[in-house]
Amino acid sequence: MPANQVNPDLQKERDKASFNTQEFTDWWVGGKDKYAAKKKLEKLFLDDPELQDDLPISHMSPTELYEHSVRKAVIIARKLRELRAEGEDDMDTYTALFGGALGSALIKEGNPMVLHFVMFVPTIMGQGTVEQQIEWLGKAWDCNILGTYAQTELGHGTFLRGLETRADYDASTQEFVLNTPTISAYKWWPGGMGHTANHAIVVAQLYTKGEFRGLAPFIVQLRDLETHMPLPGIDVGDIGPKIGMKSVNNGYLGLKNVRIPLNYMLMKNQQVLPDGTYVAPKNSVLTYGTMMFVRCALIRDLSQTLAKASTIAMRYSAVRRQSPIDPNEPEPQIIEHTTQQLKVFPQIAKAIVFKTTGEHIWNMFNNVQGELEQGNMDRLPEMHALSCCLKAITSADSAAAVEVCRLSCGGHGYMDCSNFPTIYGMTTAVCTYEGENTVMLLQTARYLVKVYGQALNGEPLVPTMEYLRESIKTKNFSNFDCSLEKIVSAFQFVAANKARIAYERMEKYRKQGHEPEAAANMTGIELTQAADLHGRAFIAQSAYIVLSQLIREVSTELGAVLQTILELYLLDACLGRLGDFLRFINLTDADVGKLELHLQECLKRLRPNAVALVDSFDVHDRVLDSALGAADGRVYERIFESAKKNPLNQEPVNKTFHQYLKPFMKANL
Amino acid sequence: MPANQVNPDLQKERDKASFNTQEFTDWWVGGKDKYAAKKKLEKLFLDDPELQDDLPISHMSPTELYEHSVRKAVIIARKLRELRAEGEDDMDTYTALFGGALGSALIKEGNPMVLHFVMFVPTIMGQGTVEQQIEWLGKAWDCNILGTYAQTELGHGTFLRGLETRADYDASTQEFVLNTPTISAYKWWPGGMGHTANHAIVVAQLYTKGEFRGLAPFIVQLRDLETHMPLPGIDVGDIGPKIGMKSVNNGYLGLKNVRIPLNYMLMKNQQVLPDGTYVAPKNSVLTYGTMMFVRCALIRDLSQTLAKASTIAMRYSAVRRQSPIDPNEPEPQIIEHTTQQLKVFPQIAKAIVFKTTGEHIWNMFNNVQGELEQGNMDRLPEMHALSCCLKAITSADSAAAVEVCRLSCGGHGYMDCSNFPTIYGMTTAVCTYEGENTVMLLQTARYLVKVYGQALNGEPLVPTMEYLRESIKTKNFSNFDCSLEKIVSAFQFVAANKARIAYERMEKYRKQGHEPEAAANMTGIELTQAADLHGRAFIAQSAYIVLSQLIREVSTELGAVLQTILELYLLDACLGRLGDFLRFINLTDADVGKLELHLQECLKRLRPNAVALVDSFDVHDRVLDSALGAADGRVYERIFESAKKNPLNQEPVNKTFHQYLKPFMKANL
Repeated sequence: MPANQVNPDLQKERDKASFNTQEFTDWWVGGKDKYAAKKKLEKLFLDDPELQDDLPISHMSPTELYEHSVRKAVIIARKLRELRAEGEDDMDTYTALFGGALGSALIKEGNPMVLHFVMFVPTIMGQGTVEQQIEWLGKAWDCNILGTYAQTELGHGTFLRGLETRADYDASTQEFVLNTPTISAYKWWPGGMGHTANHAIVVAQLYTKGEFRGLAPFIVQLRDLETHMPLPGIDVGDIGPKIGMKSVNNGYLGLKNVRIPLNYMLMKNQQVLPDGTYVAPKNSVLTYGTMMFVRCALIRDLSQTLAKASTIAMRYSAVRRQSPIDPNEPEPQIIEHTTQQLKVFPQIAKAIVFKTTGEHIWNMFNNVQGELEQGNMDRLPEMHALSCCLKAITSADSAAAVEVCRLSCGGHGYMDCSNFPTIYGMTTAVCTYEGENTVMLLQTARYLVKVYGQALNGEPLVPTMEYLRESIKTKNFSNFDCSLEKIVSAFQFVAANKARIAYERMEKYRKQGHEPEAAANMTGIELTQAADLHGRAFIAQSAYIVLSQLIREVSTELGAVLQTILELYLLDACLGRLGDFLRFINLTDADVGKLELHLQECLKRLRPNAVALVDSFDVHDRVLDSALGAADGRVYERIFESAKKNPLNQEPVNKTFHQYLKPFMKANL
Repeated sequence: MPANQVNPDLQKERDKASFNTQEFTDWWVGGKDKYAAKKKLEKLFLDDPELQDDLPISHMSPTELYEHSVRKAVIIARKLRELRAEGEDDMDTYTALFGGALGSALIKEGNPMVLHFVMFVPTIMGQGTVEQQIEWLGKAWDCNILGTYAQTELGHGTFLRGLETRADYDASTQEFVLNTPTISAYKWWPGGMGHTANHAIVVAQLYTKGEFRGLAPFIVQLRDLETHMPLPGIDVGDIGPKIGMKSVNNGYLGLKNVRIPLNYMLMKNQQVLPDGTYVAPKNSVLTYGTMMFVRCALIRDLSQTLAKASTIAMRYSAVRRQSPIDPNEPEPQIIEHTTQQLKVFPQIAKAIVFKTTGEHIWNMFNNVQGELEQGNMDRLPEMHALSCCLKAITSADSAAAVEVCRLSCGGHGYMDCSNFPTIYGMTTAVCTYEGENTVMLLQTARYLVKVYGQALNGEPLVPTMEYLRESIKTKNFSNFDCSLEKIVSAFQFVAANKARIAYERMEKYRKQGHEPEAAANMTGIELTQAADLHGRAFIAQSAYIVLSQLIREVSTELGAVLQTILELYLLDACLGRLGDFLRFINLTDADVGKLELHLQECLKRLRPNAVALVDSFDVHDRVLDSALGAADGRVYERIFESAKKNPLNQEPVNKTFHQYLKPFMKANL
């Protein structure tokens, strides 16, 4: 097929779409203005001849990849600096360049400067005093210094109080002395820390006047600004190859009696006075805001990731032909197989639904943020609990969805040129960073069972857990009619019963004499399950509310497609948790059959619009970076072209033939 | 911790084991003789100074990795040649060297010669005439030629009749003319075909006297024996980087009017006479045997893979400390967290259970093989159906289990030095090769619904589907008492009901006028689910039969551990399919609670023996190849040592600082 032609099967799919793809795209990207801005940004970066790759990065060694990525990171940062000088660097620009979308087209395995922009600068803004901001922010924004954020240690992650790195204040010189006293105290993971950054914000246990004061953040210079040599007492390097994020230059950092001035501790929230007097923070909840912000952003990024993965799988499924359905016909497009539809379509639906989750919680978060600024912290624990479980669920589901999409492409999905390996590496990482998923669920659950206790006592409940009350009043869920409304409320009923079981078992262990923490550990499985259902109930409800509203606002044609998406998501979610539903709700075999057939009917209904729908995610070919998923559908040609670029194929005979193979084959002749 | 010391937490775990690990090991490896042979083989290969790696391969580029792997593959093949000369190369030797165990310690990302030994040679043995075997086998065994097996094409996989490569017989010269007429006809994937092999068995559509005759295998020389240059008409190379199996040198092959002599077609089953007369094979089922053999071997290998993954996760979980349970105590070993036990222990149980599945089906397969040789093919479709769904279930479950193990190790599991990335790459590949999993389930299901129809008609049923009859007689499953016996029979009852639903819906579509194939596609989801449950019922039953028998034979102490494993597996499997159980069996909420608490009680019971149990899988440290899983538990030290080997860390300042970073940082000062 010629290079400028579109695969005819794919074109046919587009021709039969019943809705206007641009209408969906405008909603998806956030409006016509954002669409124009997106296109402009893509043009600015993707058309830059300096930012093209000759050789696919999968052919490079890790060292080559790092060097290649620094070169590109600098070009990107230079362009950003120019945009900033012109006042054109809005939030969306940073999101596009350092989230999973445009940035991944430029530096596929992660930008070694990412933490400078998303953690170093924001932490100074959030935790530095005005004076400290004046001192540091200008040179940080201008990239005269490059920073990273060092918290996690080789032996310590989630449990912050367990960190070993310590900062001892020496009043005689007005300096802090930083140390990583053991191997497990080494800072581990910070992006860019290996060989890129020359500064880091180091989180350490603060001691003044010989007393322990809690955690505090310090700005530590790692490398000489002229020579880039590590400064005395600094042991720094790259932690080595990983599943994904291969060019982020995640680093390690050992500190041995490293002295920094008093005012290098970020002191907006807590202070150390020159004589070593410690002034504690007014409240410790201020950092929750940042964590919630990051988790909301992650949910939004995961929705983009699913859009990417499902676009690749969907287009490939329309081009690939295999296994006859009618023995008298040629092999059909594989998307004609019902089993293939069940693999791909629910992932498209999840991409859309997770966007609604992200939007819903984002709006709630903004309201709470407003209340916070007025000193009202009532909804903080609730929002924290919600953001924790949603982070866990959306990341776990997204990682699984990416693998379903990959496997739906058979062997070709296994090749790097499909881009699935990189997408999976990026996605599964989210299950672990910014709060490991099981720990996240346990955090949600602790609050959930507390509120369950309040519900039992008839106390007022926070809005997102109000549903707990209903299930205490009503032991039986009645009139399940398989409607969407009932599926949403059934999710809440099931979640409430899961919370009840966790609560009751924990109470039982406590009455047996176990301490609360021990009882919580003994109930760990029930707690995580309850938190999981709590989050799923929220996602189902958000999808129902946001999409129902949207359906009323858009054209009839697009509305019909979105209706199918909503139904498909809810049915798939319900059948995916069928055990919980059947346990607490009196569903008959006939009900289950009805749900199953309704799901299959949704697959059939979505079929004609499926390609158009992924088209309207508007993922740029360079962002997809997939031989299987490009907009022109030249699947085999692109796979073939990719193989021909393999350095190994540039010589007909590899040197190992003469070195090893030939002597061996001839040895016993 | 000094290099020769064992982590004290790990040692304490070993000290409290209640059973003799050697007793388990002897069973696990197949007896005392096999254990001795295993140790001898490990010593022979792992102590060879030529087979050590200085640099972890994850630091190499794909080309470097290939060259490194050819060197080692030749050393291995030379040692094998020596063993063969001494008559010491039994089946177990090849299994160890080319399966996932010993071989993976030597060439971690796959041996580029593997297909020579596991496909090229066996195909000549199985499909060549005696004359052909005389001509080819000697030089193949001696590795004077190196072969591969080329069947799958860029555009064609599972559906063999769709292959495009053709072989036209030219009677005038008594030659076949081979062609890959389109880009999608290119052979794709054969291991070693890129730059290693000089011969391939090519499967092509045979035409003689202008007529199509079906598929046939041909021996095609790809490269000159002296120069290794591709022969005229041959376009051959490496397909490029992949998730895993990175050094297998999977290749592509285009053929343009390549002529080979008449007797290069393997003619044991079908013949072409010099004048082009075609003699069809007596029966087409002979190749089923090979496919079943391969699938049985895969199940056994997957059990080894799970042993490996769960050993790493288990040892790490005993060494890593995090998140207090008792706030007054130091952070506990993470295995004290119930949620962590739920992640790791069921994977240990699966390793053991999949071994019983493999053994059970292997014994059945040998019986059927015996019947086949006597011309009795009655049980062939049944065995084929069973091997298909078991391949799909064990590979999907194993891939998921590896990821659970990896995620249970938090961020450290994400690093290549954990070895999880490689293990996952190897394992998830099994979901796609040797029959894509969904296609496998559909093959099982087609036979299953056929037999369900026989059951309805009161006809005799094949033994492994006899249970279908029971569920037709009895509509309700009675007296579910949460015992293991009842869980096993409930699995069968559920599977039978899933088969019933698939059968009924397919019949309904047929009565509506759909062709059988269309009706089968419309029922695709129900069919795959029925096949899945059929396989799971078989696994549950095998585990119950084999382990119950074993428990009676071993010491009381080991028996108690195996009893816990059996309970844990069955409860976890049942709760993992709870929706199906609740749909067809009248379980109360109290029953479910009882199953859940029983599962948790099993976790608690296994806890003291968990480390000893993975120890007794006897996986060599070099096979584990994991900083997290080594027998000495020096987790942090090994991670740290691995990072220090990173080539990027051999220079304090990378050249990109002077090239890119410094000019950029100073640009606007």
